[in-house]
Amino acid sequence: MQNFADRLLEAVIAKGNPVVVGLDPRLEMMPDFLNPRGANPNGKTAAEMITSFHELILDIVSPLVPAVKLQIAFYEQYGLPGLQALHETIGLARDRKLVVIVDAKRNDIATTATAYANAFLGRTAYGTELRPVFDVDCITISPYLGRDSLQPFVDVCSKYGKGVFILVKTSNPGSRDLQDETLHSTGAPLHELVAEMVAALGKDLIGERGYSAIGAVVGATFSEQASRLRRLMPQSILLVPGYGAQGGTATDAAHCFDASGVGAIVSASRSITYPHREPSIGEDEFSKLVLGQTQTMIQGLSAALQRNGRH
Amino acid sequence: MQNFADRLLEAVIAKGNPVVVGLDPRLEMMPDFLNPRGANPNGKTAAEMITSFHELILDIVSPLVPAVKLQIAFYEQYGLPGLQALHETIGLARDRKLVVIVDAKRNDIATTATAYANAFLGRTAYGTELRPVFDVDCITISPYLGRDSLQPFVDVCSKYGKGVFILVKTSNPGSRDLQDETLHSTGAPLHELVAEMVAALGKDLIGERGYSAIGAVVGATFSEQASRLRRLMPQSILLVPGYGAQGGTATDAAHCFDASGVGAIVSASRSITYPHREPSIGEDEFSKLVLGQTQTMIQGLSAALQRNGRH
Repeated sequence: MQNFADRLLEAVIAKGNPVVVGLDPRLEMMPDFLNPRGANPNGKTAAEMITSFHELILDIVSPLVPAVKLQIAFYEQYGLPGLQALHETIGLARDRKLVVIVDAKRNDIATTATAYANAFLGRTAYGTELRPVFDVDCITISPYLGRDSLQPFVDVCSKYGKGVFILVKTSNPGSRDLQDETLHSTGAPLHELVAEMVAALGKDLIGERGYSAIGAVVGATFSEQASRLRRLMPQSILLVPGYGAQGGTATDAAHCFDASGVGAIVSASRSITYPHREPSIGEDEFSKLVLGQTQTMIQGLSAALQRNGRH
Repeated sequence: MQNFADRLLEAVIAKGNPVVVGLDPRLEMMPDFLNPRGANPNGKTAAEMITSFHELILDIVSPLVPAVKLQIAFYEQYGLPGLQALHETIGLARDRKLVVIVDAKRNDIATTATAYANAFLGRTAYGTELRPVFDVDCITISPYLGRDSLQPFVDVCSKYGKGVFILVKTSNPGSRDLQDETLHSTGAPLHELVAEMVAALGKDLIGERGYSAIGAVVGATFSEQASRLRRLMPQSILLVPGYGAQGGTATDAAHCFDASGVGAIVSASRSITYPHREPSIGEDEFSKLVLGQTQTMIQGLSAALQRNGRH
C-alpha cells in the first residue's frame, strides 16, 4: 500500500503544480444556468444541482490540478441531500484520479475519534464485515483535544494508506486568539507546540519521498509564521488555505514550501469556483472563467516559487 | 422565542435531575435481539437498527431525564444510512419533548462556521426560502480557531433561540497537552482563556434564570479545574461528559454545579445504553438494566449534590 504523502506528491509532480481546488457548495452563489434558485422548473433537487455543478468544475480542473478539497460544512448545511451530494462528488473526483481531501476539522476522544477516522479514512465494522464509508484520501482534523485524540487518526492512516492535515495555524484573523498565545513552558506560541506534535505523530509514516502522511494546515495569510512552521515540521506536507478570496498571495504561500519547491499544497475555493459576477452568466463563459482562474493560480504560484529559488 | 438556557434549565427542573443520556450508535455493542450482526435475517438495515435501538432507549429514559446527547461521529461512521438514523433519532427525541444536543465538536472559519451553525441550529437558504436542516437545540463546538470562528454560532443561537457548548476542558487524559498549558500572558492555563471567551461570548444571551445560551464542556474527570471553571463562567451552563465509563464520579461532577445545585448537566453514554455483558440478553432484561442505570445515575448525582450542600 502506497504511503499517502508519496501518492499526493506524485500527483503534484504529474500535474506540475501544487494547486488544490476547493469545492464549497453554496446554491446562492451558483450561476443561474444550474438553476439553483427558487422554483426549480427543471425539477433538479439541491443534491442534483450540487453534484452537477461539481461535475462541471471537475471536468474543467481535473486535467490541471492534483487534488480537490471538499468543505463538508457546506454539504452538511443541506442535510441528507447535501451529504448525498458529498458522496457523489467524492465518486466523481475519484473517477478523475484526483486526490480527495475532505476539510472536516473533526475530532473527538478515544473510540469517538476512531469512529470519525473510520468514517472518512478507514472501514466501519458491520458484524465481521469491514466496509469503507466516505473513504477519501485525507481529512483535516483539530488538535484542541490533545495527542490521544489525534493518535486514532494516525493509526487508521497507517493501516489504510491515508493522510490527515492537523490544524496548526489557521488563515483567519482569530487564529491569533489561541494559536498565537505564548506558552510559559516553551516561550513559543501554542501553534508551535502543535507543530511539534504533528512532527512527532508523523515520524513513523514517512514515505519514500521524505514526507509523512501526517501533515499540517498552515494558512497562507501569515507568512512569517509559515516560514518557521516549515522548519519545525520538515517532513510534514503543509495544506495552505487562505489563498485568493481570503487575501493570501502566491508570495505568502511560497513560504510554506521547502527549498526544492516541494512539501506544500495550496487551496483556493471561491476565487476558482465562483469567479463570475453576474448570476446570468452562460455555461461556456463560466467554464472559461473557471479555467482561467485555475491557470492564473497555477502560474502565480509557479512564478512565486521560482522567485524564491524554490523550484 | 425562549432563551435556550431557560428551556434547558426548565427541563431539568421538570424532570428533577440534570442527567443527559448519550446516544452512541455502535452496532457491535447492541444486544442480539436487535440483530445488528451478520446476516440480518429480519432484513433490517443499519439505519433501521440504530433507529429502533434508540427508540427503545428513548421510551425508557424520556420520562426520567431532560435531555439526550447524540454523538454524531458514531452516526457518521455508518455513512448516509447512519446520518438518516441521526435525523430519525432527532425526530424521536423531539417527539418525546427531550432537549436534543448533538455532540459535533464542529468548527471552521467565517462563512464556513455559519454553514455548520445553520446545519444544526439555524436555517439554510434555498433561494429566498429558509429551511431548517438537522435543527436541534444545541451542539458542541471547538475553540481552536479563535473567537471569530465562534461568533457565527453565537449569532445563530441568538436568532433562533438555540445554544452551544464550547469545548473548554475535555475529559480525556490528553486534554492536558494543549488545554492545560500555562500562558505567558496570564499565568493561567489555556483552558481558562477559553473560559473567559465563553463568558464574554455569552453575555448578551442570558436568560431569565441567569444563565446564558453559550455554555461550556468541562469534563467530570478533572474536579479541581472544574471548580475553578465554574467560578470563571458563572453564567454558563456546563455540559459535563466523562461520567461513568470514563471514570468521572458523581462527586467529581458535583463541582460543576453552582451553590444552588444548578448550572450543569451531566452526560453518560455507554454506562446507560450498553449496560449488558451478554449479547444474548433479552429485551425485557435489557430494558430493566437501562432503566436501573439511569435511576442509579440520577440518585448518585442527587446524593452528591446534597452532600456538597448544592441542592
